[in-house]
Amino acid sequence: MARTLTLSDDRLFPADPATREVARRLYARVKSLPIISPHGHTDPEWFAENEPFSDATSLFLAPDHYLYRMLYSQGVPLEKLGVPSRRGPSGADPREAWRLFARNVHLFRGTPSAMWLNHVFKEVFGFNEALDASTADLYFDRIGEALQTDAFRPRALFERFNIELLATTESPTDDLRHHKAMRASGWKGRVVTAYRPDPVVDPEHEEFAVSIEQFGAMTGQDVASWKGYLEAHRIRRAAFMEMGATSTDHGHPTAATADLSEAEAEALFHKVMEGVFTPADAELFRAQMLTEMAKMSLDDGLVMQIHPGSFRNHNRWLHREYGRDKGADIPTRTDYVRALKPLLDRLGNDTRLSVIVFTLDETSYARELAPLAGHYPVLKLGPAWWFHDSPEGMRRFRENTTETAGFYNTVGFNDDTRAFLSIPARHDVARRVDASFLARLVAEHRIAEDEAAEVIVDLAYNLPKRAYKLDEPLTAPSPALV
Amino acid sequence: MARTLTLSDDRLFPADPATREVARRLYARVKSLPIISPHGHTDPEWFAENEPFSDATSLFLAPDHYLYRMLYSQGVPLEKLGVPSRRGPSGADPREAWRLFARNVHLFRGTPSAMWLNHVFKEVFGFNEALDASTADLYFDRIGEALQTDAFRPRALFERFNIELLATTESPTDDLRHHKAMRASGWKGRVVTAYRPDPVVDPEHEEFAVSIEQFGAMTGQDVASWKGYLEAHRIRRAAFMEMGATSTDHGHPTAATADLSEAEAEALFHKVMEGVFTPADAELFRAQMLTEMAKMSLDDGLVMQIHPGSFRNHNRWLHREYGRDKGADIPTRTDYVRALKPLLDRLGNDTRLSVIVFTLDETSYARELAPLAGHYPVLKLGPAWWFHDSPEGMRRFRENTTETAGFYNTVGFNDDTRAFLSIPARHDVARRVDASFLARLVAEHRIAEDEAAEVIVDLAYNLPKRAYKLDEPLTAPSPALV
Amino acid sequence: MARTLTLSDDRLFPADPATREVARRLYARVKSLPIISPHGHTDPEWFAENEPFSDATSLFLAPDHYLYRMLYSQGVPLEKLGVPSRRGPSGADPREAWRLFARNVHLFRGTPSAMWLNHVFKEVFGFNEALDASTADLYFDRIGEALQTDAFRPRALFERFNIELLATTESPTDDLRHHKAMRASGWKGRVVTAYRPDPVVDPEHEEFAVSIEQFGAMTGQDVASWKGYLEAHRIRRAAFMEMGATSTDHGHPTAATADLSEAEAEALFHKVMEGVFTPADAELFRAQMLTEMAKMSLDDGLVMQIHPGSFRNHNRWLHREYGRDKGADIPTRTDYVRALKPLLDRLGNDTRLSVIVFTLDETSYARELAPLAGHYPVLKLGPAWWFHDSPEGMRRFRENTTETAGFYNTVGFNDDTRAFLSIPARHDVARRVDASFLARLVAEHRIAEDEAAEVIVDLAYNLPKRAYKLDEPLTAPSPALV
Repeated sequence: MARTLTLSDDRLFPADPATREVARRLYARVKSLPIISPHGHTDPEWFAENEPFSDATSLFLAPDHYLYRMLYSQGVPLEKLGVPSRRGPSGADPREAWRLFARNVHLFRGTPSAMWLNHVFKEVFGFNEALDASTADLYFDRIGEALQTDAFRPRALFERFNIELLATTESPTDDLRHHKAMRASGWKGRVVTAYRPDPVVDPEHEEFAVSIEQFGAMTGQDVASWKGYLEAHRIRRAAFMEMGATSTDHGHPTAATADLSEAEAEALFHKVMEGVFTPADAELFRAQMLTEMAKMSLDDGLVMQIHPGSFRNHNRWLHREYGRDKGADIPTRTDYVRALKPLLDRLGNDTRLSVIVFTLDETSYARELAPLAGHYPVLKLGPAWWFHDSPEGMRRFRENTTETAGFYNTVGFNDDTRAFLSIPARHDVARRVDASFLARLVAEHRIAEDEAAEVIVDLAYNLPKRAYKLDEPLTAPSPALV
Repeated sequence: MARTLTLSDDRLFPADPATREVARRLYARVKSLPIISPHGHTDPEWFAENEPFSDATSLFLAPDHYLYRMLYSQGVPLEKLGVPSRRGPSGADPREAWRLFARNVHLFRGTPSAMWLNHVFKEVFGFNEALDASTADLYFDRIGEALQTDAFRPRALFERFNIELLATTESPTDDLRHHKAMRASGWKGRVVTAYRPDPVVDPEHEEFAVSIEQFGAMTGQDVASWKGYLEAHRIRRAAFMEMGATSTDHGHPTAATADLSEAEAEALFHKVMEGVFTPADAELFRAQMLTEMAKMSLDDGLVMQIHPGSFRNHNRWLHREYGRDKGADIPTRTDYVRALKPLLDRLGNDTRLSVIVFTLDETSYARELAPLAGHYPVLKLGPAWWFHDSPEGMRRFRENTTETAGFYNTVGFNDDTRAFLSIPARHDVARRVDASFLARLVAEHRIAEDEAAEVIVDLAYNLPKRAYKLDEPLTAPSPALV
Repeated sequence: MARTLTLSDDRLFPADPATREVARRLYARVKSLPIISPHGHTDPEWFAENEPFSDATSLFLAPDHYLYRMLYSQGVPLEKLGVPSRRGPSGADPREAWRLFARNVHLFRGTPSAMWLNHVFKEVFGFNEALDASTADLYFDRIGEALQTDAFRPRALFERFNIELLATTESPTDDLRHHKAMRASGWKGRVVTAYRPDPVVDPEHEEFAVSIEQFGAMTGQDVASWKGYLEAHRIRRAAFMEMGATSTDHGHPTAATADLSEAEAEALFHKVMEGVFTPADAELFRAQMLTEMAKMSLDDGLVMQIHPGSFRNHNRWLHREYGRDKGADIPTRTDYVRALKPLLDRLGNDTRLSVIVFTLDETSYARELAPLAGHYPVLKLGPAWWFHDSPEGMRRFRENTTETAGFYNTVGFNDDTRAFLSIPARHDVARRVDASFLARLVAEHRIAEDEAAEVIVDLAYNLPKRAYKLDEPLTAPSPALV
């Protein structure tokens, strides 16, 4: 018989009773605040079309690399889990895939995936028994039925989840049709896009050549010229801003930036466009493009996000057979001190610019990122990211950054997810972990409780809105502290 | 007067009363489980000959680099501690050496050595007063007397310690006579060997030339040829398997692997054998040999262990005067993401292979190793190792790996020790720390207590047996999760 | 209305009641011990002249890079905070600068600066209301008045703070007039200097050429010759020792050391003096000079301190406009294993030498520094430094170093500050954090409370005195453990 599925009101709070009391009080202040999700990867088509999701496997398992990477690590073939390959959709029966997952759900003990799933199972679908082999069919059936009801269509869930703003991420070559359709539909949900130019900025991206061609076609620019290429960026950035974008996003292998002369940059661009470049040229081009993007941000006010340090597609065979984004991206050691210097030398003191930096290398929190963000006016720290978007990861983030950068050089929580149903669960985890961290500071008399009560609301709501300029003109001067 | 020596039943458990209660319950489930020790460095001669140990200094102090390195760091000469040098045995009087240790035992406050020693003193020898200057002679005398009794002979202790399996580690050129003698003796204790080919794989090993010669002589192969050299490995691996080996072990300076073509590998081999190689050649040869060993494991099923990242013999003078393994090995920064890629590109998805990776660079836990092991079917994480085989080290291991790799991509505890008497103490520490970690997850409602109760038994007993294939045919397909 | 300013007796102690009880008892043993401050940056002129400090802004804000870097990171211009630039003193009105700080004091929530400031405001100035916009003037006025009274002159504060010893840091070209004046005055306060030769050792230091010239003039040596240059060091070291110096201090970009032949060193020196050197030459010269300083320490007994790993003046514009030491130094990844080897190969086993190593790269604690200090007789670990001189930083230091290096290879606390009034607050934080760490070990039965009670006194008082040879002949053999 399956275990009872419970979701304690005290989950993630410290065990010490006095500290837990403080955590409860702090959490109570943010528990019901609207969700601000300024960085993520949900599919705008869901909200444009508002079609029902199909079944548990397609909704939860097949698209979630957190889940299938763990199963794969224990020898479960991806094709049995419904994961599509380069040859096409998986032939797996969704119910069989779900049963396979359910039989192995113990692998997720102690992981954030388990917390997120249980939250969704309990809060969204109302299950009272835990998922395991004996309840696999019950889950599959009941989820399948629920999804066919109106209450489980994307827009209804968006509203039920109390989402105030949700950002998706698109390539410059995306025509933003879904965002346009949403607006045209009159739906009130605030879903905005973000400008992610990697496919037209990274010469080593597998879709670079195709994307560049589309980029030229869409903008009417001669993107074989440096000027035309930059102008095409400006045009697409403006188009993204019409669809609500307040930010750009850059997923580079490293945090390298460059500040080449106009002539050097142009020469490098031509090497890259002619396809006769070395890996070092590609790295330098990406580096220079971060600075170019920053310069454009001075004009249009878009907030930059830099997400460096992932060795993408590390598993050669899997990449060949299944393609990108299949759970085989591995973090690497990442330097920021030297890498960001060219951009900072150029623009680091210009308060019109705002750059949010993320990391997969936690050693940089206390050593590099907190000192940098605690000094440079243009830098803010993004939250614990990806593998570190977890209770222990968030705790380490606060423990390692707060003493040097404070709370106010951080930007609140990003869920960064494709898993739409997990969004409330993820924000809830972040709010609970922040409440717990603050409660420890209060219990140790390092901060007063009334201060902590202000901070937790700032972290959950005010800082993300301010950092992503969600309620202000993008090119207004930064709020005067003076 | 010496302090009372007490060993609290609650040692290492969290102080919070509710969490401690959970830890007690979880620990109770594993406290008396048999010890599985699949990786260590005890001397098989002890169990083959079953001769009594001689005295406290020779048993505890002179062979334990954890102890004499700390004393040395505070200015105590090694020769006064009974440590042999290249010139021969120490001339120190064992009792005087013991007194010197006892006078300085405060240096070990807060270290795992202190915990292990106190455990042995109390549980194995029954002392009720702590070791210090005033009790040095009492200790020396009482230990000396006990060691002469049958109850303290190696096999009796092995049985008293409830060891189900103990692995030693031998070089390919070891004739395994002690393992043979044990088997011939009819003794029921399960002591197996492990294949540690460093002396014939590492061209920079000081015994490389001599070992290669022996290697050829023992196997009857022409080890000056690449084919013969590889065949010699196959022959010795088979011989080790006859003495129970289920694993190989590789102690390289880095985690580098390579996947050279047959011709490149052979050419490199000849450079190495002719002694005209650069440090980079030596590194590449070791790297290629990891892949060769992995390929052999596909056939014979031996589990690979990779122990990289120690800068061996860092103290030049000490190495010259005292030789290897004298407490002067220092961990270094270690990369896994790029280093393991060649081997993983070749074999990373082949479920016949199993590779257990260790590290001395804790920054790799969350950043590299957990993401790698949480994806690749061939990889598992070895426990916190060497300097990190400690309460804080084990805690950091779990905190940094669990959220991404889960518990089931780890392999339970290895004691990795030469200090036979400390084995129960070390396993007890690991069980207590895991109980404490799990208790925190339970207290914070991140895992249910019945789940934790399963996990702790898996960590203490089932996972090491499975990971080291102790009860299954080595070349059977991996246990079907599907 | 401003919040009440309280300073809990239990601040920084763990919340668990039983652990907190232990922490209280341990802290009580060291709370009132005299302050030993063997490494810092206060201005000796204060104690020589004993003139009153002027106002709150000049005392607290304008010289404290911890404070103004945080304000700057949020867009506050330095000139509004009273920070002088290369063009001269800030034109800001001190009261307006103070108000600006007070309006933004929430930025410091959770930082050590907030703890230190509140300690000073409450304990030294007797404030009962917290600093904020509404109390800015009250603070400015009351502090200003207090500073004009005799009780707030430097010497009176020194005595009130119960400082037994305070070290300042001077360049070799400093004439030590303030130290001489102090001695001549008959004042009993023990303020000593320390030898910080960076300006004459680092060819890339902006004052190198000028300093070298002064160095020759002061010592009467031909400092254009290698022999004369080294002799000038010996002369100044002796002069510093007359002003109480027991240590040297070296703030290099990396921990690199070298052990060149006499001829190589001399040739390198001439390259450097002729100004025709590469960055690699400069690095090698600094590296060689660490070994030269170590050799001199064999003769004169000065303890060496190595403070590596800061990327100085990272903000190009700020450096150009405001000069050095303006909160724009950023830590970098730092290697010790290879870097220190040349010096250790030469002198690592010579117990006449003592080298205290610091780091800004916390990843080196458990991986490199604790293993090195837990082996080499010449090495000790300096406390958590600079950005890590904080409750979380100190906790990480103990958690990461104790198990391998023990407590007795560490040297107690250094405040390393220019902010004289914060010295008691900083030492108090260190004592509380150590008490808390030890209390956890006691509560978890990893150390007996009577042992912890000895350790905390050693950490707070005995170890700094011994490590810095404050009460012993500098060239006496190290205290015999044997």
